[in-house]
Amino acid sequence: MSDATLSAPDIRPSSRYPIEALLADIGDIATSLDPADLRRKSRDYYWYSPILATRLKDKVADVIVTPRDEADVIRVAAACYRHRVPLTVRGGATGNYGQCVPLEGGVLLDMAAMNRIEWQQPGIVRVQAGAKLFDIDAQTRPLGWELRMHPSTKRMAQIGGFVAGGSGGIGSVTFGGMREPGNILAARIVTVEERPRVIELRGDAAQKISRAYGTTGIITALEMPLAPALPWIDVIVAFDDFAESIRFGRAIAMADGVVKKLLAPIEWPLPQNFAGLRQYCPDGKAVLLGMIGSMSIESFETLLEAFGGTLTYKAPSEDVLTKVPLYEHTWNHCTLQTFKVDRNITYLQVLYPHDRVVESAAEIGARFEGEVMQHLEFIRINGLMTASGIPVIRFSTPERLYEIMAAYEARGIMIANPHVLTLEDGSRYKRVDADQLAFKHEVDPLGLLNPGKMRSFVPRSPGALQ
Amino acid sequence: MSDATLSAPDIRPSSRYPIEALLADIGDIATSLDPADLRRKSRDYYWYSPILATRLKDKVADVIVTPRDEADVIRVAAACYRHRVPLTVRGGATGNYGQCVPLEGGVLLDMAAMNRIEWQQPGIVRVQAGAKLFDIDAQTRPLGWELRMHPSTKRMAQIGGFVAGGSGGIGSVTFGGMREPGNILAARIVTVEERPRVIELRGDAAQKISRAYGTTGIITALEMPLAPALPWIDVIVAFDDFAESIRFGRAIAMADGVVKKLLAPIEWPLPQNFAGLRQYCPDGKAVLLGMIGSMSIESFETLLEAFGGTLTYKAPSEDVLTKVPLYEHTWNHCTLQTFKVDRNITYLQVLYPHDRVVESAAEIGARFEGEVMQHLEFIRINGLMTASGIPVIRFSTPERLYEIMAAYEARGIMIANPHVLTLEDGSRYKRVDADQLAFKHEVDPLGLLNPGKMRSFVPRSPGALQ
Repeated sequence: MSDATLSAPDIRPSSRYPIEALLADIGDIATSLDPADLRRKSRDYYWYSPILATRLKDKVADVIVTPRDEADVIRVAAACYRHRVPLTVRGGATGNYGQCVPLEGGVLLDMAAMNRIEWQQPGIVRVQAGAKLFDIDAQTRPLGWELRMHPSTKRMAQIGGFVAGGSGGIGSVTFGGMREPGNILAARIVTVEERPRVIELRGDAAQKISRAYGTTGIITALEMPLAPALPWIDVIVAFDDFAESIRFGRAIAMADGVVKKLLAPIEWPLPQNFAGLRQYCPDGKAVLLGMIGSMSIESFETLLEAFGGTLTYKAPSEDVLTKVPLYEHTWNHCTLQTFKVDRNITYLQVLYPHDRVVESAAEIGARFEGEVMQHLEFIRINGLMTASGIPVIRFSTPERLYEIMAAYEARGIMIANPHVLTLEDGSRYKRVDADQLAFKHEVDPLGLLNPGKMRSFVPRSPGALQ
Repeated sequence: MSDATLSAPDIRPSSRYPIEALLADIGDIATSLDPADLRRKSRDYYWYSPILATRLKDKVADVIVTPRDEADVIRVAAACYRHRVPLTVRGGATGNYGQCVPLEGGVLLDMAAMNRIEWQQPGIVRVQAGAKLFDIDAQTRPLGWELRMHPSTKRMAQIGGFVAGGSGGIGSVTFGGMREPGNILAARIVTVEERPRVIELRGDAAQKISRAYGTTGIITALEMPLAPALPWIDVIVAFDDFAESIRFGRAIAMADGVVKKLLAPIEWPLPQNFAGLRQYCPDGKAVLLGMIGSMSIESFETLLEAFGGTLTYKAPSEDVLTKVPLYEHTWNHCTLQTFKVDRNITYLQVLYPHDRVVESAAEIGARFEGEVMQHLEFIRINGLMTASGIPVIRFSTPERLYEIMAAYEARGIMIANPHVLTLEDGSRYKRVDADQLAFKHEVDPLGLLNPGKMRSFVPRSPGALQ
């Protein structure tokens, strides 16, 4: 018996839902009622937030269902509708906001078996939602293509979960976020109704499922645009001064002739915790971690010299499962690297103003020295270059955390709060997209999909989950 | 005897220079003293400007020399130095500012025979300066790469001439101009000295020869970064209103998820003169000509629908010598298409302010209705999306042309005057780059290279050309 099971609360199938009747309806589809399974699979990396860690630790599904194909998904959706059982979709469970944590229990729909590439054509791949990002790249690369962007969790994450939860990542410095027109070509979903429908959402309509945490339909397949697979070079460069590393990052970001996939200036002492890369991060220095197209590496080094930085590491990016990649020290993996040596931290997700990236980061640095440790990731948004950031914060109290957040916002730095449960509270604009809300009434009238995540949604149908 | 020869002025070898002594020095290198050759090759497309047409029509070289390799170039350079003979380099002669017109006569160095690809590696090509852009693409495409940008004259232009004269073109909507860091990797030049040196200019140093009209050394080879060769789709879309075509173009330009190589809104009646494309350009409508990555074509059409435009043409881009490509209706080819039906026009080269593209174009349109016909080409500059333009203008007098130019500048639209001879007068900032000027003293102390083009240059050496 594992530790997880020992420390688990009572997680026998809840009497809230007619799980046995539901199981009878779904026939031979694989299910699990094993308490250890239920507990383990009802989690993601929400524990990065001490606030979510407290609020989510006892949430657990009643049953795990693992569909083989879309027909299975339709059957499960119909059964959930008939028996009024919540349905929460689980991808790679690499998110940080409890996206796949079943707040109301019920069915946890594990997409892992629906991992097939349906087809490829130049620049486009059609995949089942449970395909891992790593596996997609592995299958598109031989034809000269790769995913345009991926989170730092690429080795584990699934495409469906990324689209339903993520906003961008490594690659967004060139292609912008998932929300930019053209970055999702189509999504196929199953509705939760008496007779579930299959809907193909093409073009702009596909945004109805982007960052909706699986509340607006069960994604079964995605059509994603690809980028040419380039020979990438991992680089680490060091600067005396964090501001200078940001300035240099911005110069490379703005240089449209320099091809890049990642530009992440990181403040000391964060690099102190980069086990595998520690030797390339000089004591007391800020570093910038980057992925640069090999044809641009000389131009990168020329600019670096002009900025007075020092190149400490340069090697072709290796995309293998057996080795920790450079990018697993950026985005929220930077937080994870810190957690490995210090549990008393947490983080924020911020978006610096595009015309005051260096200045606003410097102001935060001066105000919270020793308490807030910044790293930035340059990204494009709405056609403009800017930087997001996931500052690592020494945690004292929730009140102090809110104080820090207020200080960010006072400087025009937007916060996407990762310490809340709902889509609305976690968004930069504190609201859910109106299209998504209207669409949810069409595809999930009873509000069974991931209930509790879309706070603005109030079901209109009689018999809806309350 | 051709018409050209009949109408030519007296172009026997000038007594200004000891051409026979020079010929004796250069041995078996191919030369021509044929008057028709001399006259024909001493021209480019400067006649687009009625002002340049008058000033340059009698300028002619004394001898054409066609080097086979760099050793030949060195020999010619040494001979020109010894005998104080001007040397003007000729590429494809597709420019519009008299870049290869030998203002002071002397040697016209025809680079056509130095057209070899030296090597390729992923994302990089090393070529001799006389290689045609079309031929480079033809040889890099089978390996999955193409030039990042090219002028509308791609089917005839040479890479050396493009780098020495051009600033960007089709592709600059993604990669910015030639001046952006990373868009020229290296240039190899021969100096004009007693003992000519060969200098490899790498990285930022290569900018010393960019848009210098061959005044800062004889370019013999270039190392150019490549872009992945994508499946491009040519599109034409029509709008009732020119401003709306610009707005749509800007939306696509700013959508980083939509892959593009060309976005050119064109005002009616310019499309009336597009012989091969006329049927796709509805009467009285503005059109936008574009090259869109095939993986983004559906996203393009989705956005088009939102803007209320009409798709009138869509077909895979064909890059063949035997067919007029779509892009030969944009940039300065738009002027050429108009010349074919109306000789009484001229043009300007302008750069719209990045934050007032639509507004400033509308203001010019209102002020000069019927006299100025605008088309824009979206490009990136310094990391920001903006648009250049080459308005076609009904020509009356030089004074009126200057008046129009003043009206542009009053609206914050910068002018690179194409009706002047020198680098300085033709630049947006009315000056030559200081680096280039200093460098010229090192590599061409007597001022023999393309004399008259770099106005700020005053040779310090005794015996220099005056």
